[in-house]
Amino acid sequence: MSAAAVTERGVIDLVRRATAHARSGVRAGIGDDCAVLEPRPGSLLLATTDLLIEDVHFRRRHATLEDIGWKALAVNLSDIASMGGRPRWALVALACPPSTSSEEVEAFYEGMLTLATDRGVAVVGGDTSASRAGWVINVTLLGEAERPVLRSTARAGDVIAVTGPLGRSAAGFAVLERSAPPQGLPVDALADVTTAHRRPVPRTREGLWLGAARGVTAMIDLSDGLATDLAHIGEESGVGARVDLDRLPVNDATRRVAAALGADAMTWATGGGEDYELLLTCDREALRTVAEGLERATGTRLHVVGEIRHAEHGLTLRDAGGRTVALTGGFQHFQTREDPRAG
Amino acid sequence: MSAAAVTERGVIDLVRRATAHARSGVRAGIGDDCAVLEPRPGSLLLATTDLLIEDVHFRRRHATLEDIGWKALAVNLSDIASMGGRPRWALVALACPPSTSSEEVEAFYEGMLTLATDRGVAVVGGDTSASRAGWVINVTLLGEAERPVLRSTARAGDVIAVTGPLGRSAAGFAVLERSAPPQGLPVDALADVTTAHRRPVPRTREGLWLGAARGVTAMIDLSDGLATDLAHIGEESGVGARVDLDRLPVNDATRRVAAALGADAMTWATGGGEDYELLLTCDREALRTVAEGLERATGTRLHVVGEIRHAEHGLTLRDAGGRTVALTGGFQHFQTREDPRAG
Repeated sequence: MSAAAVTERGVIDLVRRATAHARSGVRAGIGDDCAVLEPRPGSLLLATTDLLIEDVHFRRRHATLEDIGWKALAVNLSDIASMGGRPRWALVALACPPSTSSEEVEAFYEGMLTLATDRGVAVVGGDTSASRAGWVINVTLLGEAERPVLRSTARAGDVIAVTGPLGRSAAGFAVLERSAPPQGLPVDALADVTTAHRRPVPRTREGLWLGAARGVTAMIDLSDGLATDLAHIGEESGVGARVDLDRLPVNDATRRVAAALGADAMTWATGGGEDYELLLTCDREALRTVAEGLERATGTRLHVVGEIRHAEHGLTLRDAGGRTVALTGGFQHFQTREDPRAG
Repeated sequence: MSAAAVTERGVIDLVRRATAHARSGVRAGIGDDCAVLEPRPGSLLLATTDLLIEDVHFRRRHATLEDIGWKALAVNLSDIASMGGRPRWALVALACPPSTSSEEVEAFYEGMLTLATDRGVAVVGGDTSASRAGWVINVTLLGEAERPVLRSTARAGDVIAVTGPLGRSAAGFAVLERSAPPQGLPVDALADVTTAHRRPVPRTREGLWLGAARGVTAMIDLSDGLATDLAHIGEESGVGARVDLDRLPVNDATRRVAAALGADAMTWATGGGEDYELLLTCDREALRTVAEGLERATGTRLHVVGEIRHAEHGLTLRDAGGRTVALTGGFQHFQTREDPRAG
């Protein structure tokens, strides 16, 4: 492919220039058979990989190439954050159609490198090739942690907390899927939810702080949605959990978009996915110290949303009236029971 | 996608079972946000990634899914070998069409895990998702080395050697591209070249031994073909090179296939690619010790094919008569000059 053949060298030069600041721990970067990296003595190595395919995992019409580059790295940064780790090195493999211009490839990398630079991540390897089926992107991110926080160590009695509002990305996706923006919504509400979808901000500093805090017992990032991700903690830790519907943080923009579209904000908050907030479990005694310390260190407030229970209770969602349903069903189950006419 | 939804859990279980033997250095494998790995103290970390797309990088009709799984790991093992490294951990991201069965996904993993087990590699992470465009495979392989051998450290006067015959994979590809096998060729010649193409054997032990040997100055694996890969060494080391045509190792099977197809074995040997032999440069004084030591340790014989020269000489190919052409042009340039009627 002629465009990418031109671009391969251009990409290597672009990446070399852009990551010149982040040479610490990089003995040899892009341009050899392998990257050669120098982990910090005493650290454990974290590794995560994510494969993104056009029209399966993302849509070109929803976002610029800069946005797509940003998000491809962001989802991996979120995985490192959820272990309490420090992100360090990325390998990027990109395949795009033969008609792709160097400017398009550069736009993708510029979005990615903006975020990489902000998080101190060096892009140390990867390749560019042809695709007959739209853009295909794989990012592998390596990080370090002294004491990684797993999914498998939550205990009955722990509180469950999240680092920010839920359902924003699903609201953004719902807006972007429409041919025209819904009527009567303020611009800043639209911008809030579409930006949350296009450029999620991974909780790197929060993850690092929480990973080092006493009392944090387990952590995961909210990529698939609260119900699914909490189920992963339940499964790996052998526990149940109860989430309180009226404690779920949902911001005003998300509520307004839901109202304008006739959608349900709580369904987005419990099942929407792609919020990339952290969900953590925490010893009840330590909660206040953890919450105050996190806010002081990062400005981010913790929202307590429920508690870990013994496995036999399962995973449940409780509404303000005290009624409970299985969490996997999500909020719409309350609606269906209350009003059988609701779709 | 229902098939892969069933399969995702199946794949995790399959990988967990199959890599139970390789738990050393794995604190947490598949099933958390990140793999948690424990590098050996004092080692440098090697990282390489490769994105393979159906009908761009491989064809389903040329190979079984077991072969495809094997090769997806093999190409990355070859990169680690070319640095003199020890392969340790793999992350595998797989996307396949919704119609894919669990048996097909398992066949792919079985091919890969056969090779992984043989090389002591643990598959520690990855994901399975849907694709609307055939199979898409990304493998990231991590390894370790105390003193990685780079591309950038070859010196004028060094000899150039390779670890085995060249052009076999290109011969195999030429056979597989035909609708029927060529007439009059013995079965074992066909098997030799098609197996070389489908199941390349990465030079893991040879790379490890050569990486530790005194006198080996630079190394690369032959993935793109001798001309292109030697040019990478030339570029990164700032040197030229001369390759002697009559010293290139080409086996009997490759010669017979070339004769049967009316193709040219030397063109395959210089430009064919995918042989996954190692190409190394070596101090002339150390050559004999290196060659004898390698053969004793691994059974593999070194073939000297040329020498590194000062940059101003460029990269050239010399035939038995002493005539030279630019290496990038390859062997066909000799033919074109000698016989203008040749296609």
